Amino acid sequence: MIHIERSTNLKVKPAQEKLGFGQYFTDHMFMLDYDVTKGWHDARIVPYQPITLDPAAKVFHYGQTIFEGLKAYRGGDSRIRLFRPEANIARMNRSNVRMSVPQLDSDQVLAALEKLIEVDAKWIPSEPGTSLYIRPFVFATQPVLGVAPSEQYQFIIIMSPVGAYYPEGINPVRIFVESEHVRASVGGVGEAKTAGNYAATFMSQQTAKEAGYTQVMWLDSAQHRFIEEVGSMNVFFRIDGKVCTPALSGSILAGITRSSIIQLLASWGIAVEERTISIEELYEAGREGRLEEAFGTGTAAVVSPIGELCWQGERLIIGESRTGELAKRLYDALTGIQYGTVEDTFGWVKAVDVQAALV
Amino acid sequence: MIHIERSTNLKVKPAQEKLGFGQYFTDHMFMLDYDVTKGWHDARIVPYQPITLDPAAKVFHYGQTIFEGLKAYRGGDSRIRLFRPEANIARMNRSNVRMSVPQLDSDQVLAALEKLIEVDAKWIPSEPGTSLYIRPFVFATQPVLGVAPSEQYQFIIIMSPVGAYYPEGINPVRIFVESEHVRASVGGVGEAKTAGNYAATFMSQQTAKEAGYTQVMWLDSAQHRFIEEVGSMNVFFRIDGKVCTPALSGSILAGITRSSIIQLLASWGIAVEERTISIEELYEAGREGRLEEAFGTGTAAVVSPIGELCWQGERLIIGESRTGELAKRLYDALTGIQYGTVEDTFGWVKAVDVQAALV
Repeated sequence: MIHIERSTNLKVKPAQEKLGFGQYFTDHMFMLDYDVTKGWHDARIVPYQPITLDPAAKVFHYGQTIFEGLKAYRGGDSRIRLFRPEANIARMNRSNVRMSVPQLDSDQVLAALEKLIEVDAKWIPSEPGTSLYIRPFVFATQPVLGVAPSEQYQFIIIMSPVGAYYPEGINPVRIFVESEHVRASVGGVGEAKTAGNYAATFMSQQTAKEAGYTQVMWLDSAQHRFIEEVGSMNVFFRIDGKVCTPALSGSILAGITRSSIIQLLASWGIAVEERTISIEELYEAGREGRLEEAFGTGTAAVVSPIGELCWQGERLIIGESRTGELAKRLYDALTGIQYGTVEDTFGWVKAVDVQAALV
Repeated sequence: MIHIERSTNLKVKPAQEKLGFGQYFTDHMFMLDYDVTKGWHDARIVPYQPITLDPAAKVFHYGQTIFEGLKAYRGGDSRIRLFRPEANIARMNRSNVRMSVPQLDSDQVLAALEKLIEVDAKWIPSEPGTSLYIRPFVFATQPVLGVAPSEQYQFIIIMSPVGAYYPEGINPVRIFVESEHVRASVGGVGEAKTAGNYAATFMSQQTAKEAGYTQVMWLDSAQHRFIEEVGSMNVFFRIDGKVCTPALSGSILAGITRSSIIQLLASWGIAVEERTISIEELYEAGREGRLEEAFGTGTAAVVSPIGELCWQGERLIIGESRTGELAKRLYDALTGIQYGTVEDTFGWVKAVDVQAALV
């Protein structure tokens, strides 16, 4: 049972061409509280509003927080589609285990998500490539400084209309291979979608930007040899006609786009090798002209082709810095399923019935 | 210039024997805001109060947050002493660099600290072993979901009167050596006092507790062999009469108590070897009766003797599970300097002139 308090002071919606990413938020948010004695309770949709926390709340001090990111897409048929929301909720609960955060009820979260989308349905943008980005997150609120798991939490869903990731068409990026700093290590929390993993990447991101690169490629923490992720995306390569991606080692985020691409390729008869891939192997293939494509995958970009790498000063141009054939085909197929122009034979799409609310 | 708004509704102070750690907070807090266009601004002491944040504030999503911990001690002479506060502020700024948080002005922070202690001087407890725990922290507040450093921050100092760490006298603890999960890795953020490093330890802490141990000993992430820290303390050993501690590898927090102990021992003519120490070496010494003492060091406990280890099922009793001679001597010397009963020949103590405010 979700209590709904509707905003009486609706915001002016921004122009769709000015949306950008995560800058504007809808009129409402979902909130759910946890207390060790009561469990999760007080599910409610309320006007988008500030959170009030004691300055001793554990989120500020010990970082127990998990988030997820998914999108609602408005199709040309005016139907609203979510892409594998159950997978996001399942991953959130896996992250919660690693960070000692209590489990959420998957059905309750999905119902909350759908209800919130219904309430703010008019915020789902309609221009090509736009979508409604959904950000569920949970954080520790108990105001006690003891270094131990919190006994109180808050779970919130906020939503933001976002612009097209590629307003001028899908385009390759230049990536800086980070040989000194690391994102995560096996036995650590790299597999959890927790806040601290992101702040840990900002310094390298800055180094990459200053050198003229868009993002960072992460190597393993033990040997600085094995490829892990690119920015906050998983990464795929096509070498000698074969597709490979780093195996989920424990330090790599199990991307939902990653898993979808593996399944999609399998359905096309293309097997993906999930294995360790060293930067030396990649460069050797690149120097010999056998590295045909490289691309990142994630919810924001779906597929992000990589046109150039820089590792220890050596630049490597991939696929003449053009978007590869496979990357393009995957991008078209996945976005087609998301916007409803390609048949979803995988059962990935969850349509949300908000026709009435859209009017 | 710090603007001061005094609380008109002072709290009832808790009984000193019931203080515990970080459960009660004083009447006031210090706040300072940052904006990329204005820099740090609006320094103020206000009544202790909730923080109000947009739910999109970056602290909840990407974890840019740093904290420090230090104490103010009320001596038998009624003077108030801070222990090496400049060292905490310097470490905070080093942590800020790693987490892409803007630098704080050290003099401004120290002045804020002293002023806040003066305003809430009556909160500094007087019973033996009690102190006023001071928690400066900074976190990202910009309400934008782009994965990039925040352009807005808040810096806050809160204070909590805390009870004696050893109400029944200094006492050894039992430690579980973690062979699977890791706290941090070289190239990561283990050297920064950032929130995410703490949440990452809760799962192992729970495993240790369930096995009947108080805390976890962390090994390096690459080989799971080299000793890093114990709980959230640094760790020292006395083997064959020689004192050693893990060298600061980049993944270990540079403890201020750790550095003080190294200096204190040097002044006694005891050199500390800062080097890699493998768990195998430690166990071999322990089995052969050459591991004479082990103890953790940190602001909360000062010195915490280790009476037993458990590594891969093998229990190792250290020093007959009694507090070692060196640990006791160090504890007495450091707490003596902190409470003003032992002369501070190092210039560590900073007396705060709050006599008037104490009356």
